[in-house]
Amino acid sequence: MFFHRKETIVPVDVKHPDPQFGQFLLEQFGGATGELTAALQYWVQSFHVTDPSIRDMLQDIALEEFSHLEVVGKLIEQHTSTLDQTDVYAAPLFRVRGVGPHFVDSQGSAWTAAYINEGGNVVRDLRANIAAEAGARQTYEALIHNCKDTATKKVLTHLLTREITHAQMFMAALDKMGKLTDPMFGTIKPDETVDLVFNLSKGDDHRGPWNSKPLFRFEDDPKPTGGLPPGPVNPDDEEVKLAAE
Amino acid sequence: MFFHRKETIVPVDVKHPDPQFGQFLLEQFGGATGELTAALQYWVQSFHVTDPSIRDMLQDIALEEFSHLEVVGKLIEQHTSTLDQTDVYAAPLFRVRGVGPHFVDSQGSAWTAAYINEGGNVVRDLRANIAAEAGARQTYEALIHNCKDTATKKVLTHLLTREITHAQMFMAALDKMGKLTDPMFGTIKPDETVDLVFNLSKGDDHRGPWNSKPLFRFEDDPKPTGGLPPGPVNPDDEEVKLAAE
Amino acid sequence: MFFHRKETIVPVDVKHPDPQFGQFLLEQFGGATGELTAALQYWVQSFHVTDPSIRDMLQDIALEEFSHLEVVGKLIEQHTSTLDQTDVYAAPLFRVRGVGPHFVDSQGSAWTAAYINEGGNVVRDLRANIAAEAGARQTYEALIHNCKDTATKKVLTHLLTREITHAQMFMAALDKMGKLTDPMFGTIKPDETVDLVFNLSKGDDHRGPWNSKPLFRFEDDPKPTGGLPPGPVNPDDEEVKLAAE
Amino acid sequence: MFFHRKETIVPVDVKHPDPQFGQFLLEQFGGATGELTAALQYWVQSFHVTDPSIRDMLQDIALEEFSHLEVVGKLIEQHTSTLDQTDVYAAPLFRVRGVGPHFVDSQGSAWTAAYINEGGNVVRDLRANIAAEAGARQTYEALIHNCKDTATKKVLTHLLTREITHAQMFMAALDKMGKLTDPMFGTIKPDETVDLVFNLSKGDDHRGPWNSKPLFRFEDDPKPTGGLPPGPVNPDDEEVKLAAE
Amino acid sequence: MFFHRKETIVPVDVKHPDPQFGQFLLEQFGGATGELTAALQYWVQSFHVTDPSIRDMLQDIALEEFSHLEVVGKLIEQHTSTLDQTDVYAAPLFRVRGVGPHFVDSQGSAWTAAYINEGGNVVRDLRANIAAEAGARQTYEALIHNCKDTATKKVLTHLLTREITHAQMFMAALDKMGKLTDPMFGTIKPDETVDLVFNLSKGDDHRGPWNSKPLFRFEDDPKPTGGLPPGPVNPDDEEVKLAAE
Amino acid sequence: MFFHRKETIVPVDVKHPDPQFGQFLLEQFGGATGELTAALQYWVQSFHVTDPSIRDMLQDIALEEFSHLEVVGKLIEQHTSTLDQTDVYAAPLFRVRGVGPHFVDSQGSAWTAAYINEGGNVVRDLRANIAAEAGARQTYEALIHNCKDTATKKVLTHLLTREITHAQMFMAALDKMGKLTDPMFGTIKPDETVDLVFNLSKGDDHRGPWNSKPLFRFEDDPKPTGGLPPGPVNPDDEEVKLAAE
Repeated sequence: MFFHRKETIVPVDVKHPDPQFGQFLLEQFGGATGELTAALQYWVQSFHVTDPSIRDMLQDIALEEFSHLEVVGKLIEQHTSTLDQTDVYAAPLFRVRGVGPHFVDSQGSAWTAAYINEGGNVVRDLRANIAAEAGARQTYEALIHNCKDTATKKVLTHLLTREITHAQMFMAALDKMGKLTDPMFGTIKPDETVDLVFNLSKGDDHRGPWNSKPLFRFEDDPKPTGGLPPGPVNPDDEEVKLAAE
Repeated sequence: MFFHRKETIVPVDVKHPDPQFGQFLLEQFGGATGELTAALQYWVQSFHVTDPSIRDMLQDIALEEFSHLEVVGKLIEQHTSTLDQTDVYAAPLFRVRGVGPHFVDSQGSAWTAAYINEGGNVVRDLRANIAAEAGARQTYEALIHNCKDTATKKVLTHLLTREITHAQMFMAALDKMGKLTDPMFGTIKPDETVDLVFNLSKGDDHRGPWNSKPLFRFEDDPKPTGGLPPGPVNPDDEEVKLAAE
Repeated sequence: MFFHRKETIVPVDVKHPDPQFGQFLLEQFGGATGELTAALQYWVQSFHVTDPSIRDMLQDIALEEFSHLEVVGKLIEQHTSTLDQTDVYAAPLFRVRGVGPHFVDSQGSAWTAAYINEGGNVVRDLRANIAAEAGARQTYEALIHNCKDTATKKVLTHLLTREITHAQMFMAALDKMGKLTDPMFGTIKPDETVDLVFNLSKGDDHRGPWNSKPLFRFEDDPKPTGGLPPGPVNPDDEEVKLAAE
Repeated sequence: MFFHRKETIVPVDVKHPDPQFGQFLLEQFGGATGELTAALQYWVQSFHVTDPSIRDMLQDIALEEFSHLEVVGKLIEQHTSTLDQTDVYAAPLFRVRGVGPHFVDSQGSAWTAAYINEGGNVVRDLRANIAAEAGARQTYEALIHNCKDTATKKVLTHLLTREITHAQMFMAALDKMGKLTDPMFGTIKPDETVDLVFNLSKGDDHRGPWNSKPLFRFEDDPKPTGGLPPGPVNPDDEEVKLAAE
Repeated sequence: MFFHRKETIVPVDVKHPDPQFGQFLLEQFGGATGELTAALQYWVQSFHVTDPSIRDMLQDIALEEFSHLEVVGKLIEQHTSTLDQTDVYAAPLFRVRGVGPHFVDSQGSAWTAAYINEGGNVVRDLRANIAAEAGARQTYEALIHNCKDTATKKVLTHLLTREITHAQMFMAALDKMGKLTDPMFGTIKPDETVDLVFNLSKGDDHRGPWNSKPLFRFEDDPKPTGGLPPGPVNPDDEEVKLAAE
Repeated sequence: MFFHRKETIVPVDVKHPDPQFGQFLLEQFGGATGELTAALQYWVQSFHVTDPSIRDMLQDIALEEFSHLEVVGKLIEQHTSTLDQTDVYAAPLFRVRGVGPHFVDSQGSAWTAAYINEGGNVVRDLRANIAAEAGARQTYEALIHNCKDTATKKVLTHLLTREITHAQMFMAALDKMGKLTDPMFGTIKPDETVDLVFNLSKGDDHRGPWNSKPLFRFEDDPKPTGGLPPGPVNPDDEEVKLAAE
């Protein structure tokens, strides 16, 4: 069951509102790497993760992400408070749809659950979460680099910080399961090609630990091992009589 | 520049075609965790990754994923070759749209680039890729558990194997950069809350390395540190005279 | 700031799990009329609604909808707990993506913020909310009519009940503002056609209070009042020399 | 069966074309609150509404909305007729895709039927329509406030006016059914919680007719009534041995 | 300006309603190849096509497609009229969302304007239309092959017929412009490679008029003509020190 | 099986990088008419086209389109290399998401497989391809008209040229099958209305070969031939007692 207090988890007090920057901020409200994605991804995972301690962790972090979504929303609300004093074609999204946050990204695309990565297995979920945190951190860095308001920068730096915290929590959980540095999980045994690496893009080739011994066997000039498969059987295709040579 | 040979990277020879299973297989052709997502994600990253050796790795793996996409497509082509002999309302997608693969998932939703996770920074990209591999592996496991055709199972096991290989390659690259087990990257210094963990979902609480010393300080009963923010300024909102108590 | 308790707002205890019904239930988890739509719609409105008492109401209800989303998720989790004992091609979504809820509807389409209706003005928002509640109630009715598990029915009836409660709350708020039965709001004065009704679909015509006096003037055979507008100016169009008669 | 006359329902004669404003206008051509949404929503409802007089009303209004869609399209056509004389990066959508209207919103997102709200029950449909009209009216107000061309303003004011007319028609229909001010409809009897209101968002609390007697019983400090539900059963989840405290 | 008569353009009288077939029919109501796509595509083109006779043709056909959309909707309405007498998990879409047509395809995906192909140039538009007609015809053929109701088959055959008529009309228009068999249009002069064909997919190679003289020069073993481009300049990328060999 | 060389198919060497033009270029990377659409459309068709020579042609062209996608990506990479020196709110997409290409269009909408047109029959596929080429050519023309960098213009002209080449190849294949100028294909015999043309949009009427003898019979004032169909049967609709006149 969810509860809410109207005070924000950290203070939000924009000094120099800038509706155009408000449109940038939408990326973390209704965008792919935003707080909604994180909150819903961790929370929906908690419904199929069988270990109660991981479930608890997922829910604790999900709740913090909802609280962060609120903080980003408040930032946008305050940055758009001066929309009437800006050029009519700056920050067009808020002109047409109204001030305050909306569940779209900085380009106006509606948030979609296609951004969420989850399902079936806790190792898969935790790896997805480390990726989600990395995406969120990267977007916060981009926003901070382009932000002129000191108060906003401070909040964004806090939100970036928390993504690192969460990443470390997910890493600690994977580490406890022995899955932080081991690629394998699940019940299916891989076949004998598991240590083969194929050089399929040629030119400017490089070697590194990811395609060298001791972990990998490198195949410099790989060839198809499947023959030419038979053509399709398509009862609806045109009866074509083509004398192709 | 891209080249192609008509022979497949591994043999594809379905013995017992099953159009309904063909519809399941679409998940790895046009679905979120499928080969198209992997191929395009790794390849598009190669355009902004500055290190030439990581770029080479991304392109090598992307090309293998394109070759795997072809393998999944051939499996679907062969599984749908007997559509005419099945019940009219089984595998409805192929009935209406024709046999063979289409860029939709097993539920008929069109593939969208919203599935792709990339941008800005190579550490973010590689973490996204480990997550992508985990998702692909998980779906292959689900398909294998529900597959009756031995020949198909063998191919799917190979594809699952290669996801593990790629995950290990991405891990090796992150490890060389010192970023496999370190959550931090980028240029912004986190604030002082980086080791705080909040207990925001209460009841059935659990402790583990992800919310305990030495890595973390645990806050059992967190409170808002932001006060009540001011209400929005919305010039278009209704002039409401509400005697709210 | 958000908080959570792991106990659910109402008890969830499915007696006869049915994964196929679980797929139906997704409609209210990740579907257009589902609890996520309601929770996010009301909550995002609270960022631009200037009246603090309406804002409080929107947040109170949003929080309840999040709690209901959790209840629907728990129902789906329990209904899919027996997936392994069902036919492999029943409830295909959970087979391929794993048990438990996902943010898709009963047809497998990802949730999109395009479902959300909000922005600019509190009257518009409240009318959107009454519509959202009506959609949710209608889907719950459909689910109840097709549900065999008594325990599930009881929960769904509660959720349906609460949609009626919320609708009544939104109506009470609109009524206080004098906008429940008055179509006008905002600052633009309508033109003189405001009471005209056009009979544009002919045959099987009917009259009622919506196209009759005293509220309306009825125009049985409306004609264009705009003349033939000039053709487009398109510099990129083909230079066509067509001697069309 | 549909018919068309090339004259527009009202005159369209833009005096001062502005391609950037043309991009704003797309919101009402291919956007969520636009004329296509209205036309298709009312018309598709007419296929399942059993009362012939409501069906007639829905079709009459749908046809008017199609005619309004044409008017908005003509406005966009005329506003983009001077694209060649504007800065190359103003109104980018028309630069790349050509002049005239397209079925996207002002941010370039393709129109989606996810905007449509309909199904199952006429009361639900009519409430959805009142919401649709409110959204359309609100967007027209935003456009008018930002419009410099008097001729365009006049047309937009007419279109806004008609949304009010339609809202009043839908209200009159609901009123005749006794459903304009009564939240209940359908065949399912609500449970005993129908008059309970929960204070779930605390701080800056307010009371009003929507959470007070005589209509409602107010619960200031609601608690979960469901206990802790059992954890999920997930056969595909990792066998994790975690000594969680 | 649009007008409507309630009689359908052709009779619709389903004798043996089948809700599962009704779900198939959605493909032509709210699907990619359906009547909505055709109607809106031709009609939106008419706003930027400068030749008045082509514009007239586009509008005439668009109006017929709207009338066909109505026919498909009526077919679905009649096929779902017996939903209550079918198995609860057959035709699930109508169970959950109500009887009658909805703007989704047979897999439940919402119609999107991404299906529409138009813009900038009348030759491009007309070619897009011939493709649209071919897609529609193909889906009607698939539906007819899987249809058991004679009355429905007759209607579907008529709709298929009209797609051929429209294709022929578009061909006649292109032919008049000299663009039916000439690939070139527009104002940009192609470069000297216009008759080169590259053999990029090797194995099972075939020759035909599309890669042979007199129209084409065939390059059996094409090579890159661009060198190795410089690596990207990405200020946000990680400072990686990788001793890649 | 796919292979790659790091050299590009044609040289890419932007002299005057312009991030705003880079955003325009996204239209051909991740947009509807872009190279990804073409590559995937032709390639996925090859899985159901039964004629091996057409299959070979489709794969040859698909591979070239992948190589062109790479060229467009390199153009974008180079055009965004000076992003740091441009105004912070120019080219906003790259500011927030990082430099280099992404699979979105120039308006920031994610690429979707809804752009792809294919399935069931080779004639339908080839017609779809001619349309795809026309769309791609049109967008290249728009880009060239708005491009200031000579080196970029040269590359874009080459890409435009190749679309013409491919269009001609598809035309040659259709011609060999006798389907370039004949609208009919497939196995269903059209009904007797195949040569009827309806004048449904009246006013400013025009005649041409597409609605005249010898190919067509013209019906100037078409009427419905279907009567008034019965109203819907909707068990979930409200029991409305409306005394509609």
